[in-house]
Amino acid sequence: MKHSVDLEKYQIRTDLAIESIKNIDDISEEIIEDDIKITKVIIDEKISKEINKKKGNYVTIEFLDITDSYNYEKVKNIFVREFKKFLNLLNIKKDDSCLIIGLGNSKSTPDSLGPLVINNVLVTNHLFELDELDKDYRRVSVFCPGVMGQTGLETSDIITTIVGKFKPDFVIIIDALASQSIDRVNKTIQMTDSGIHPGSGVGNSRKEISFETLHIPCLAIGIPTVVDAITIVSDTINYMHKHYTYSKLNINNPLNKLIAYPNYLNEKITLNKKDKETLLGIVGTLDDSEIKQLLFEVLTPIGYNMMVTPKEVDFLVEKLSLLIGNGLNESLHNI
Amino acid sequence: MKHSVDLEKYQIRTDLAIESIKNIDDISEEIIEDDIKITKVIIDEKISKEINKKKGNYVTIEFLDITDSYNYEKVKNIFVREFKKFLNLLNIKKDDSCLIIGLGNSKSTPDSLGPLVINNVLVTNHLFELDELDKDYRRVSVFCPGVMGQTGLETSDIITTIVGKFKPDFVIIIDALASQSIDRVNKTIQMTDSGIHPGSGVGNSRKEISFETLHIPCLAIGIPTVVDAITIVSDTINYMHKHYTYSKLNINNPLNKLIAYPNYLNEKITLNKKDKETLLGIVGTLDDSEIKQLLFEVLTPIGYNMMVTPKEVDFLVEKLSLLIGNGLNESLHNI
Amino acid sequence: MKHSVDLEKYQIRTDLAIESIKNIDDISEEIIEDDIKITKVIIDEKISKEINKKKGNYVTIEFLDITDSYNYEKVKNIFVREFKKFLNLLNIKKDDSCLIIGLGNSKSTPDSLGPLVINNVLVTNHLFELDELDKDYRRVSVFCPGVMGQTGLETSDIITTIVGKFKPDFVIIIDALASQSIDRVNKTIQMTDSGIHPGSGVGNSRKEISFETLHIPCLAIGIPTVVDAITIVSDTINYMHKHYTYSKLNINNPLNKLIAYPNYLNEKITLNKKDKETLLGIVGTLDDSEIKQLLFEVLTPIGYNMMVTPKEVDFLVEKLSLLIGNGLNESLHNI
Amino acid sequence: MKHSVDLEKYQIRTDLAIESIKNIDDISEEIIEDDIKITKVIIDEKISKEINKKKGNYVTIEFLDITDSYNYEKVKNIFVREFKKFLNLLNIKKDDSCLIIGLGNSKSTPDSLGPLVINNVLVTNHLFELDELDKDYRRVSVFCPGVMGQTGLETSDIITTIVGKFKPDFVIIIDALASQSIDRVNKTIQMTDSGIHPGSGVGNSRKEISFETLHIPCLAIGIPTVVDAITIVSDTINYMHKHYTYSKLNINNPLNKLIAYPNYLNEKITLNKKDKETLLGIVGTLDDSEIKQLLFEVLTPIGYNMMVTPKEVDFLVEKLSLLIGNGLNESLHNI
Repeated sequence: MKHSVDLEKYQIRTDLAIESIKNIDDISEEIIEDDIKITKVIIDEKISKEINKKKGNYVTIEFLDITDSYNYEKVKNIFVREFKKFLNLLNIKKDDSCLIIGLGNSKSTPDSLGPLVINNVLVTNHLFELDELDKDYRRVSVFCPGVMGQTGLETSDIITTIVGKFKPDFVIIIDALASQSIDRVNKTIQMTDSGIHPGSGVGNSRKEISFETLHIPCLAIGIPTVVDAITIVSDTINYMHKHYTYSKLNINNPLNKLIAYPNYLNEKITLNKKDKETLLGIVGTLDDSEIKQLLFEVLTPIGYNMMVTPKEVDFLVEKLSLLIGNGLNESLHNI
Repeated sequence: MKHSVDLEKYQIRTDLAIESIKNIDDISEEIIEDDIKITKVIIDEKISKEINKKKGNYVTIEFLDITDSYNYEKVKNIFVREFKKFLNLLNIKKDDSCLIIGLGNSKSTPDSLGPLVINNVLVTNHLFELDELDKDYRRVSVFCPGVMGQTGLETSDIITTIVGKFKPDFVIIIDALASQSIDRVNKTIQMTDSGIHPGSGVGNSRKEISFETLHIPCLAIGIPTVVDAITIVSDTINYMHKHYTYSKLNINNPLNKLIAYPNYLNEKITLNKKDKETLLGIVGTLDDSEIKQLLFEVLTPIGYNMMVTPKEVDFLVEKLSLLIGNGLNESLHNI
Repeated sequence: MKHSVDLEKYQIRTDLAIESIKNIDDISEEIIEDDIKITKVIIDEKISKEINKKKGNYVTIEFLDITDSYNYEKVKNIFVREFKKFLNLLNIKKDDSCLIIGLGNSKSTPDSLGPLVINNVLVTNHLFELDELDKDYRRVSVFCPGVMGQTGLETSDIITTIVGKFKPDFVIIIDALASQSIDRVNKTIQMTDSGIHPGSGVGNSRKEISFETLHIPCLAIGIPTVVDAITIVSDTINYMHKHYTYSKLNINNPLNKLIAYPNYLNEKITLNKKDKETLLGIVGTLDDSEIKQLLFEVLTPIGYNMMVTPKEVDFLVEKLSLLIGNGLNESLHNI
Repeated sequence: MKHSVDLEKYQIRTDLAIESIKNIDDISEEIIEDDIKITKVIIDEKISKEINKKKGNYVTIEFLDITDSYNYEKVKNIFVREFKKFLNLLNIKKDDSCLIIGLGNSKSTPDSLGPLVINNVLVTNHLFELDELDKDYRRVSVFCPGVMGQTGLETSDIITTIVGKFKPDFVIIIDALASQSIDRVNKTIQMTDSGIHPGSGVGNSRKEISFETLHIPCLAIGIPTVVDAITIVSDTINYMHKHYTYSKLNINNPLNKLIAYPNYLNEKITLNKKDKETLLGIVGTLDDSEIKQLLFEVLTPIGYNMMVTPKEVDFLVEKLSLLIGNGLNESLHNI
């Protein structure tokens, strides 16, 4: 599997901090509420260099389903609670004015989260001039800069310029992200005070938008809506390994005579390298990042390392943007 | 890998005839024009039983890109030529009236091909009453029945009823399909006189719409817009095999010192089972359908056998529906 | 003002019963709740012939504003109460199945009320097959037939056919209407058991959809979203008359030194024909229907008798369709 | 009709120069091509003060119908020809970079012209960095600032800031306008080098966008899509006068026995004040601006001076934005 020339390395396309950190358990705090998992990570200077991820606080909310209205409410309430904590942490005051920026392309469903959230946000800034609002409301303005493929303009430059002109006290940036795991797509909300790199998750590095570039607190909220083919295949290879081990252990389990397809992920199984090699040959000898590098070399030259999104993307992105929009309204105003 | 209970079998989720037939080369006629491949298959009674696919004529147009306007024209012209042949084959006369049915859900991008094509179709039926059209036009009416999840009604019943009432001389049905191959998604148009099973490609069997049920010629035009995770993984396993063999053969090829990622698919390579086993262990010993069955058992119980669509789906479906709409206008009228 | 040839008469373009009846006070019952007016009219055989309006029960809810969430709730609650009374009146049972039909063109904002309401309706019919719903739900299915300009097909024929096939116990039809009064546009909901004539309000008579044609109860809900230029001008002529009389009476009223533009409509003023003639010459001698006939003769030959809609139509139609959709859900199910 | 207090004056809501100028014939040049009228006006310092309209060059193209593809081409070609003349007049060079700004609210059909045009414009600026374009293309970038009701931000401030940052050589601004004449709505394109006042046509004065504020050439393209009720009524009053005079003159004309509704606008008729008074009483004695002021006083306090748009607005705005978008592409690039 050696190559005679230096190859470009597979760049992990993720915007989620919890996916960048190998020994995540050492540095994170995890809470489970019903079937919702909340993970808090602080990335300091040292870890930041190790994993090439900006230092800052990261809170991740993972959930199973929000199409049901009961689950929707549960996830939204956790979002509001955690987002308010973030506002406190950053010392945002009750009267601080806020600019919410919806990144992404409103014409491309998997990339339209930002603009869709903006549609659901209560805009108040211009009403303050008219003295129409009472003390329960904060000044909120919004902005959708579009994407470079639409405007021809560098998105981060648009944002820096607008922030420089209107001088909000803090900004909130909403963006659709890429994930490194099938099971997080449309099922994870990340919030962070480390800002954002527009398009970095999907492979186009653009200039950073953060406290360092804007000089005001810069909260980013993201939801992964796409995943690449490499991720789907490498995830599946790991599931094959677990499934093989589970099947070997349970071949005589009478339960399996009743349940055709047990959910082996729910079981605590000790995996060993030997099984992986038996099942998967040379591929079974590679570690995760080697497998991804191999898949990159296999899929990229033939043009099949696509970014994909579940076919239900329209309904999910609509529901998620409603959740974030309403969650922001509850967090930012006293309503 | 044995299971102690009888398992549900993996149902291949494809609507493409060329993907259902194993020894496709024996029964098909293939033409290559530039980089566009046209495949014609006649499925007779005998083959129909073998592959569980309705008998009839199938023409498939495979292409690489239609976002470029030059390629768009080329593909559209081939579509018009092949579709007119189909009209002749079915003995459709110049004055026969046509009802075009756009299947699918206009609110779900990957499933919106049918309704979007309808938007681009020239509707003339009502103008004939007013005597406003000259002889170059055919009577065309259109109809979008929606999907059962929207309407609560069985789609095939709606169609049968409407056809029974308005009595067109023939119908054309447009639908988004599922593919069994990554490289056909949004890059293949299938036309057939065998009718359609709404939703069959994505796993919900509904009642058939065909000459047998409608008693008039029933042309179906479909484009695969989704693929399942099993397909992505099993395709990739085959690519890994080819890539491995190619790399072994070319390890000392000086060319590879220059080209980091050669497109190994372009090369004629003789694959052997031995290599596959070395590379992929037990998995390498399985044939294609066994691998898919295994992946079905691995991914289904944990809920990860998603249907996915490329993230550019909005632009592609829009462009494809323009092509089919304009292609139909040119084929049906003398314009 | 005589014409030497027999002229086509101005057809009043209204779908509202309360606008068709001259001496409306004699035959109607009117309730005012806050600033919402509810009018009930029963048109019997005799009146039906006089005013060329189908016999049946008509309930009209007139309101000022539903963009405010407080008013929205108030109007919705009245809608639910009145609609449930209608269901009782027609002897609709708790378990009777319902087909809701959204008339109109989803691509034309002022005509999109029907399709938009359908988007907000809870569809349950297909879930009954799966035994997924409890006793609080009724079978509801929905259907949007499109308009003839889109489909080329006669809308009433589509509906009759679909109803004949699926045999619901009753139907509800939603449509955007035309009004004969500026102040009712987007501010009036009419419900009736007399059915509907698609497009009749805007001048294209199509076949009736009613108990007589469908043989099941047929409730129609309509909101006027358009008004013609003749209406705007003739309404204004009447306002000029009132304004003139009011100004004459109040020329020395000291209040008018404070209020530049008093709302003269709120005042009880006795109008007289003399004033109208002084103010408006020959035009002032004509009665309402003569003025409309004159305006028809003035505006029609030069192509300016347009149907218009307020420029805020997108927001209003969206809000109104949410109200009707949610109101129907509350009325039809036990939720 | 006197008021005892000083009243707010009726502000003519028009953005069209040809509607602001009384003796338009004295200062304009008019060309008729088929049924398309092109009017050129130069407003100098002196006239500017008289009519309260910015000095500059104004070209207006008036047409009857662009839904027919033949007329569409004719109007588009005239637009391209006249717009290129404007580029020359302003000394815009072949390589000068251009920022196109789409004003208005994409969620409100009558106000969505700007954002819709932007969708049809060829954006090239970012491709220049990649060296992907040949010499036939100019650098074009685009931007939609939204409206204050959506963003909470002053639109002109957003624009000034973006222009200051990206430093295009010139800007083109697209906006939907208000008209003072029924027959110009959706049937007139105005281009000018005098810039624009966002929202001024519909009554909200915002800061100017022009050469004076941006310090680069600033072309504005506008199409009236709305008209107020006052305009509809006052236009109709004038048509009544003409119709009355025409009818009097032609009462014995035998032609009128054949044509029920002759188009009296096509006739040269000498109008006299006497007829107007006979027909319209006191109202007939008022001149145009007095009638508008009266209508303002009649309609404003009762809330009926609505801005309206024809009910076909969706189709017309879509077609017009295609024309302007394609016209700009042809004018700006060598394609």
